[in-house]
Amino acid sequence: MQARPKAPLYLKLAQSLEQQIGAGVLRAGERVPSIRWLSRREGVSISTVLQAYLWLENRGAIEARPKSGFFVRVPFTKLVPEPRFQTPDPKPKQAGVGTLVSEVVAAARNPACAPLGTACPDPELFPYQKLNRILRGITRHTPLHSGSYDFSLGVEPLRHQVARRALESGCNFSPSEIVVTCGAMEALNLGLRAVAQPGDVIATESPTYFGVLEAIQSLGMRVIEIPTHPREGISLEMLERAIHKHRIRACVTMPNGHNPLGYVLPDERKKALVELAMKSGIVLIEDDIYGDLAYSAQRPKVAKALDSGGTVILCSSFSKVLAPGFRVGWVHAGRFQAEVERLKFISTVATPSLPQLALAEYLESGGYERYLARLRIAFAEQVRVVSQAIAKYFPEGTRLTRPDAGYLLWVELPRKVDALKLFHAALEANVGIVPGNLFSAAGRFRNSIRVSCGYRWSAAIDRALLTLGRLADRMAEAS
Amino acid sequence: MQARPKAPLYLKLAQSLEQQIGAGVLRAGERVPSIRWLSRREGVSISTVLQAYLWLENRGAIEARPKSGFFVRVPFTKLVPEPRFQTPDPKPKQAGVGTLVSEVVAAARNPACAPLGTACPDPELFPYQKLNRILRGITRHTPLHSGSYDFSLGVEPLRHQVARRALESGCNFSPSEIVVTCGAMEALNLGLRAVAQPGDVIATESPTYFGVLEAIQSLGMRVIEIPTHPREGISLEMLERAIHKHRIRACVTMPNGHNPLGYVLPDERKKALVELAMKSGIVLIEDDIYGDLAYSAQRPKVAKALDSGGTVILCSSFSKVLAPGFRVGWVHAGRFQAEVERLKFISTVATPSLPQLALAEYLESGGYERYLARLRIAFAEQVRVVSQAIAKYFPEGTRLTRPDAGYLLWVELPRKVDALKLFHAALEANVGIVPGNLFSAAGRFRNSIRVSCGYRWSAAIDRALLTLGRLADRMAEAS
Repeated sequence: MQARPKAPLYLKLAQSLEQQIGAGVLRAGERVPSIRWLSRREGVSISTVLQAYLWLENRGAIEARPKSGFFVRVPFTKLVPEPRFQTPDPKPKQAGVGTLVSEVVAAARNPACAPLGTACPDPELFPYQKLNRILRGITRHTPLHSGSYDFSLGVEPLRHQVARRALESGCNFSPSEIVVTCGAMEALNLGLRAVAQPGDVIATESPTYFGVLEAIQSLGMRVIEIPTHPREGISLEMLERAIHKHRIRACVTMPNGHNPLGYVLPDERKKALVELAMKSGIVLIEDDIYGDLAYSAQRPKVAKALDSGGTVILCSSFSKVLAPGFRVGWVHAGRFQAEVERLKFISTVATPSLPQLALAEYLESGGYERYLARLRIAFAEQVRVVSQAIAKYFPEGTRLTRPDAGYLLWVELPRKVDALKLFHAALEANVGIVPGNLFSAAGRFRNSIRVSCGYRWSAAIDRALLTLGRLADRMAEAS
Repeated sequence: MQARPKAPLYLKLAQSLEQQIGAGVLRAGERVPSIRWLSRREGVSISTVLQAYLWLENRGAIEARPKSGFFVRVPFTKLVPEPRFQTPDPKPKQAGVGTLVSEVVAAARNPACAPLGTACPDPELFPYQKLNRILRGITRHTPLHSGSYDFSLGVEPLRHQVARRALESGCNFSPSEIVVTCGAMEALNLGLRAVAQPGDVIATESPTYFGVLEAIQSLGMRVIEIPTHPREGISLEMLERAIHKHRIRACVTMPNGHNPLGYVLPDERKKALVELAMKSGIVLIEDDIYGDLAYSAQRPKVAKALDSGGTVILCSSFSKVLAPGFRVGWVHAGRFQAEVERLKFISTVATPSLPQLALAEYLESGGYERYLARLRIAFAEQVRVVSQAIAKYFPEGTRLTRPDAGYLLWVELPRKVDALKLFHAALEANVGIVPGNLFSAAGRFRNSIRVSCGYRWSAAIDRALLTLGRLADRMAEAS
């Protein structure tokens, strides 16, 4: 009969492994010996090895990857440096990012492409079984759900749930202040159109989500890109200077889970931004679609919560957390609500009823917070694993964001790497990414890419990142 | 034992009733004697009277109304005259119809209001049970239906069905040429934005659907309203003159089931319109949402079918025929497709997947044509009954369209009746209508209203029309 492992035995083993890691014998990102192999070599039981590994995992020295075993963890601070904060002088631009968007979307439509491109989470992570049960219920208890237009405001029970949940992000809303939209993009468009006219100048973070740049351009407005720090957000100094120099009407901003930078701004910075906006008489159009996906224990406040003067239009959606294909978003437009309602009616008349009813019932039924906690952990983990793979596979000189929310990574590559060329080469190799060029109308970020970690880690994603790293390597070395 | 009725007996009765109608003893719109009463008075059997009534119904002399008995039919040609064709000189206008739309929409949201306002059909007329069965099936056989964005083009099986059905309206489309949208309003917006810029002039019919006027205005474009004949459609002469005088970029047109006039243009007129557009280098944005609801045995062709040069952008939706709350429309933009796809992506990203899948399966399953035939008959009947009630209740001097499709009536009231005042007075009395003012940005149609016959005839609708007639009467008589 085998003796039960004593504490010192597993500890001795664990400490010797920790030394090996420290000495570089086992290197960051490498697989540690299998439990079975080590138990044989060391003549200890399986459970002793397992206990040693769990101790090391607790210490942050190694990590378990689903279905792959344990790996030496790359200490995050030692990973690769963060992207640089560049501060070119911003000027209003007319141009959007044009046809490149179509190429990126086409790649997203191609099922053969590894899904590192568009910002879509793995559909399997969503609570689709519960949503389907709810949908079936609705077809029975409300058979006429889609028999009429749900004019302008949206389904009441959903607006009620949105108002209830807004408390979490520091807002006290009435359901009658919420206008449901066809996703957050419609909300942003309505916000822009409610406050600005063709020809007006709109400030954005830089980099920023390409859809925002395209929307501004397609509405005949001009965009001014304000340099944005990968951790501290939009430069308030440069925004203020730009406001004085150009007649800026509004600023589109993502203080929580910025796309593509991933930061969540601390409340003081949000407050400073709101105060600058109020003082200067510009409107903030806040996009909070990643707010529910912040890794922090406490759901971060929205800038809107720090706004006493009605200067913030808050937009969000359920696309990143429950069902992208439902296309349900919402906007709290405050003093611009009547105009937003009017524009909603003449843009898409109403938002589809059935998805709204399903989301309302889902949110009402409880369990959303628990589910969200699991989802956040999954995304944080996916981001960590992809970060390590990038550290391992990508060329020297690569820089990487440290997201506080969501599942997006912003990768600054060595200067020689042309992101557009990398995008095309990756596409050829069936890997989808988004070139940094798309995130600026002013032609910046030509050696950056956005990598989505929305899908669960798999051998295929590992391979895709390896491929990407090799392609970037080749470009970095070419002279 | 009673003798079985012989042919001459019921015929004698029927002919004597016909004489009474001809002599004005029984007047148009009046209820004919009940079957039981007449059988007693004439000493004939119930079935003899019934047979006489059916003979009269076949002759078009009387008509059955659900749950109300038989009524003397108003010969349509003798009803009330058609609205006048007015031809003021058109000029480009900046203004939309503004806040009045919100009031109309608010009335539509009020369940206490008789539904003669917005262009919504009775939800009970739709095949919602079959659609619900299909929806439940989808939640089982495609559980991840809403797990990702359906980027840009829309669900393939639906585009396939749209292309298949386009043959009916004379078009040979490939599924890859269809872009699915959040209803026809999004389709129209995308079409307008794809061909025109802020400041450009867009021609419309006059009167035309207020959403179109609002959309044009909100995009910073100017509108020029071309006088439109209640039966022959847009004045080609005046359109041509306007094209020569102003730099018109596009014309939004509804050749089939015009809103609010209800006409279906004959193919020659459609062809002439397309040829004028081609010759002048303007784009036609064709709205065909009522095309499937034409009363003719043959589904009318779309103008697009007569277009050899890619000058027509065709927009439609399933909102008027299957499920308004699904918000599924589509656009065939021809040479503007790439731009429409781009604009779709930055407006609403994608159209909700589940309603698309449900419609595709519904259309694939067969039975749509049979259902449509029933729906068309129902609408034609509702329009006829409402027309007769208007003839009976409304003041002398009222004029009325003779729709060829759909369920909308355009009512021209005596000059003294202020449609806006009538709208507000009707609202007070819980009757929803749309004032004519809304159908013109140039301030026309101040004594017209649009009445929707989308709901099945009922005592409540009869009462609402009586109320409306009395209100109009009072205004017509006031001095």
